[in-house]
Amino acid sequence: MIQNILDDIYSRISEEQSGEVANYIPALAEADPKDFGLAIVTVNGDVYTAGDADTPFTIQSQSKPFTFALALEECGIETTYEHVGTEPSGDAFNSVVLDPVTKVPFNPMVNSGALSMAGLIQEKKGEGAFEAIRSCYSSFAGAELSVNDRVYDSELATAHRNRAIAHLMRSGDVVSDPVDEVVHLYTEQCSIEVTARQMATMSASLANIGTNPVTDETIVSPLVVRHVLSLMFTCGMYDYAGRWAVDVGMPAKSGVSGGLMAVVNRQIGIGLYSPPLDEHGNSVRAIKACVELAEEFGLHAFEFSNAGSSMLSVYI
Amino acid sequence: MIQNILDDIYSRISEEQSGEVANYIPALAEADPKDFGLAIVTVNGDVYTAGDADTPFTIQSQSKPFTFALALEECGIETTYEHVGTEPSGDAFNSVVLDPVTKVPFNPMVNSGALSMAGLIQEKKGEGAFEAIRSCYSSFAGAELSVNDRVYDSELATAHRNRAIAHLMRSGDVVSDPVDEVVHLYTEQCSIEVTARQMATMSASLANIGTNPVTDETIVSPLVVRHVLSLMFTCGMYDYAGRWAVDVGMPAKSGVSGGLMAVVNRQIGIGLYSPPLDEHGNSVRAIKACVELAEEFGLHAFEFSNAGSSMLSVYI
Amino acid sequence: MIQNILDDIYSRISEEQSGEVANYIPALAEADPKDFGLAIVTVNGDVYTAGDADTPFTIQSQSKPFTFALALEECGIETTYEHVGTEPSGDAFNSVVLDPVTKVPFNPMVNSGALSMAGLIQEKKGEGAFEAIRSCYSSFAGAELSVNDRVYDSELATAHRNRAIAHLMRSGDVVSDPVDEVVHLYTEQCSIEVTARQMATMSASLANIGTNPVTDETIVSPLVVRHVLSLMFTCGMYDYAGRWAVDVGMPAKSGVSGGLMAVVNRQIGIGLYSPPLDEHGNSVRAIKACVELAEEFGLHAFEFSNAGSSMLSVYI
Amino acid sequence: MIQNILDDIYSRISEEQSGEVANYIPALAEADPKDFGLAIVTVNGDVYTAGDADTPFTIQSQSKPFTFALALEECGIETTYEHVGTEPSGDAFNSVVLDPVTKVPFNPMVNSGALSMAGLIQEKKGEGAFEAIRSCYSSFAGAELSVNDRVYDSELATAHRNRAIAHLMRSGDVVSDPVDEVVHLYTEQCSIEVTARQMATMSASLANIGTNPVTDETIVSPLVVRHVLSLMFTCGMYDYAGRWAVDVGMPAKSGVSGGLMAVVNRQIGIGLYSPPLDEHGNSVRAIKACVELAEEFGLHAFEFSNAGSSMLSVYI
Repeated sequence: MIQNILDDIYSRISEEQSGEVANYIPALAEADPKDFGLAIVTVNGDVYTAGDADTPFTIQSQSKPFTFALALEECGIETTYEHVGTEPSGDAFNSVVLDPVTKVPFNPMVNSGALSMAGLIQEKKGEGAFEAIRSCYSSFAGAELSVNDRVYDSELATAHRNRAIAHLMRSGDVVSDPVDEVVHLYTEQCSIEVTARQMATMSASLANIGTNPVTDETIVSPLVVRHVLSLMFTCGMYDYAGRWAVDVGMPAKSGVSGGLMAVVNRQIGIGLYSPPLDEHGNSVRAIKACVELAEEFGLHAFEFSNAGSSMLSVYI
Repeated sequence: MIQNILDDIYSRISEEQSGEVANYIPALAEADPKDFGLAIVTVNGDVYTAGDADTPFTIQSQSKPFTFALALEECGIETTYEHVGTEPSGDAFNSVVLDPVTKVPFNPMVNSGALSMAGLIQEKKGEGAFEAIRSCYSSFAGAELSVNDRVYDSELATAHRNRAIAHLMRSGDVVSDPVDEVVHLYTEQCSIEVTARQMATMSASLANIGTNPVTDETIVSPLVVRHVLSLMFTCGMYDYAGRWAVDVGMPAKSGVSGGLMAVVNRQIGIGLYSPPLDEHGNSVRAIKACVELAEEFGLHAFEFSNAGSSMLSVYI
Repeated sequence: MIQNILDDIYSRISEEQSGEVANYIPALAEADPKDFGLAIVTVNGDVYTAGDADTPFTIQSQSKPFTFALALEECGIETTYEHVGTEPSGDAFNSVVLDPVTKVPFNPMVNSGALSMAGLIQEKKGEGAFEAIRSCYSSFAGAELSVNDRVYDSELATAHRNRAIAHLMRSGDVVSDPVDEVVHLYTEQCSIEVTARQMATMSASLANIGTNPVTDETIVSPLVVRHVLSLMFTCGMYDYAGRWAVDVGMPAKSGVSGGLMAVVNRQIGIGLYSPPLDEHGNSVRAIKACVELAEEFGLHAFEFSNAGSSMLSVYI
Repeated sequence: MIQNILDDIYSRISEEQSGEVANYIPALAEADPKDFGLAIVTVNGDVYTAGDADTPFTIQSQSKPFTFALALEECGIETTYEHVGTEPSGDAFNSVVLDPVTKVPFNPMVNSGALSMAGLIQEKKGEGAFEAIRSCYSSFAGAELSVNDRVYDSELATAHRNRAIAHLMRSGDVVSDPVDEVVHLYTEQCSIEVTARQMATMSASLANIGTNPVTDETIVSPLVVRHVLSLMFTCGMYDYAGRWAVDVGMPAKSGVSGGLMAVVNRQIGIGLYSPPLDEHGNSVRAIKACVELAEEFGLHAFEFSNAGSSMLSVYI
């Protein structure tokens, strides 16, 4: 049944031709606009795919929730929130501005917050920082992930705005020296390659409260998952986050390569990939597919299909 | 069991003495800082209370979700979103600023958005606007609600900032003439008196997807409820909204009188009242009580206790 | 010689056809785009004119320096600067924003600052406020000025943004009740009719350190003039002020009717009128004429032709 | 007479004890708060000094007008204004924000604008950039100036915010690679040592329309001087610029070491030095001394003592 619906959505939404492939670096501009992959992984470890679910693409901003999760797990909640906030910023993803009151980034889903989280991992892990990140993502994906060097080199050469953000945060002691290394680390994490299938597994590991349902490896604690999902819900979709919360209502995160992941508590992880982006920087086909999946299966967190707390249901 | 936990929370949190009663008008400043009322109403119509659950207070900003609900129900989703956005603003409740791109208020939970919604009801209902609002709230509460005239007069005399916002929106054709009437209407809706028990019933009507579980009256459609809960989740707690989403994770709305309501999908509505406010303008005791209730019963929307979609559970 | 240069500039710049007449109210939109008047009045009382120097137009924002002057003269420097700042805002003329630190308008040349100044006159003069303003302007102009009622009525009906600003300032106690009266007063001052010849006389009264050079009436003190000219220099030309300071370098003020006045210390006042406006809201032909006059006569305040202080020249 | 007045001002204002020495790097914090030097150089080359007029200090932000002058002279007005604006920003000196419309810094007197100007010189001169700047300043000062290496090293180690600004401008193609070199160049120019006497000579070279009155060397054209003085007038004193324009009315520039220079067209240059700073970052004693000098000699550009244009005076 899930497979049938996935196939149906794939065939209808493949027709959609609007959107523009990101072209700020050649390596991204070469992506095939026709590519479209979908995958659903359940908390039981069942996998459903349609289309180009095994086409690799760089994870980009979809990495943000996972480095945030790693920071929470490794450095603790208190330390993490000394380096990043929890408030939606209402701003586009590459905003330079820090929270004027707290002087830290508004939240971990904007570039400044993601750089701050990478900086925190670097402070904790030193030279092992990138391997800690890569290894964490790999555990979430149930596969050994690696960097696309060509994308990494291109991104690094054009990371002027991220350098600006990192130096600004250095100025406010949000990140530590060496600042350049923080930018390298974040750029490298963004250049890790994944597939829609792998992203669905990563999502499913969040849905399964921190344990990869395919490999059974426990990666982060349930409390960490709650923090990550809450911030994905309120801040995961750039300046489209509010409308997404109303219309689709799943914790989600998108990336400039055309990837999109969404999580349904205790049930499934969804991974999608299609390069053409809308004006908010989100994949056109991936958004449409999520809207249809949410309607079909009643996935919205505040839909009548969501029956609240299983703990409370004992008493009422 | 629910009663025991409520009693226990009441007795422990009554001790809390911090916070300041709102004092910008005398009628609010006179509130007794010791007042503390709690109520839970289930979707089965069961009612649990503790403390001063029948002490009346003015609804203030807790009115915002209900006028928004009325606008969606009466004017339709499309028309409503021509007059208000869905994005968190990250700003304090009395921000003058409109969304620089769309020129409408960021969302219906800030003053500008609430004034815009009141303006929409006025456009639709003319002289019957206030009665439409009062009657709608009464249906949600299962009781005939009325205005506290003394608070209304005081608020109106000091509503300079709301007048500024309304004239600014008139300038951008977000509200129509007569502008003064829109400010009167919004001020009057804020001056309607409720109790913690009534607010819990209003919340429970949302939890019960639009139907009052005590009176069985259907007030708004399930789709309207989804929109209202989504925006309460992302924008309901002023500039504390992000942290609330992470720590408590229920759609909620607070008001300057010291009221706080929270909703658990398909299960319960919570109403609380205690006048002393924290620096974000939220009731100190009410926040603490919600934190404890959320922990006790696993109420966080992205907690492991939330089992996702009942529709999807058929297939996995 | 002055007459020859004026005639020459008139005949060349009359050819200029670019710009758009303000059309936000019908009474302004009816202005003849071909109208072009120039006048120079010297501190000796000599008058030179070219073109439509006696065509009436409403003074609009060119009123701002004169009500500011009246406030300084009547209420004193200290009280005045409790109600308005001296800093350039870098913003367009109808910005709602107040200085975030001082909570008063940035300067008296933006709408908020001009409304604050009108409010100060109202507080001081009560029912006689408008007559005090009209009479002051008339003394500067050496002629009995009066209001264009049709423009006044139109402006008042569409003054939504100014009402917003006034209520916002009421909220911060920058203006007093009745707020509506302040908006009426400011709108009425903006609807006073003048000609290019009269504006040149008003400017020449500033150049002549507060005394009308035609009537010999002393209106304001030299210190008041210094404050007015300084703020015209730094803030008089909307968001074109900085470029004007570099390229033309005279204290100046423009208005939406197409008027422009400029002052050369101790020498001349310049008044110009031509309705078509550029993208900054300044009269296209008036700007061009000022640029040519400044070059022809070396009028830039920091040009080598300006020989500094006559008091200092005694010693060096 | 000038000497007497200078001596008198020195002796009275030496008493002033308020203000705090800049302490963000040790090399600045060691400055003696009692130091107080004044110098006036006339366009005839006469020099008057009082107090510690030969105590060296680093030029810091007082360098900004001179690199701007060099850019205008070497690269032309058009190219220069493609890299920096002319509008006051109303912001503090270390604002990160670029003009949202033009995407270049607001003006050359804020850090972003000064970095942009340094970048322009680097683009033009390559490896000879610093020597071009040092040599230009030396010509203005009539003395071979050199860098304080200790200050340079300290400033460079803490230049996080300037690095952020430079990378942000690189992102918008306002500056070119290598970005680090631009920050080095600007930091080095700020670390050049001068005395109050030398700053007065630099100012006097501007007053003397581009020619050093002591050495008779012509450094920049009169048109460049006009641009520099105009922007010093509107933007030279950080967020105190507007009040300075009203109260003192001379083109001026201050620096964090406690230096302040001011220019009176065609007459004198003033150089002052005293380390304790007020809350705007301006030297307390230097400001007081300028206020007194301005009153004593009628130096305000829009004071009655300023007799306007010598070219126009022929005709009236």
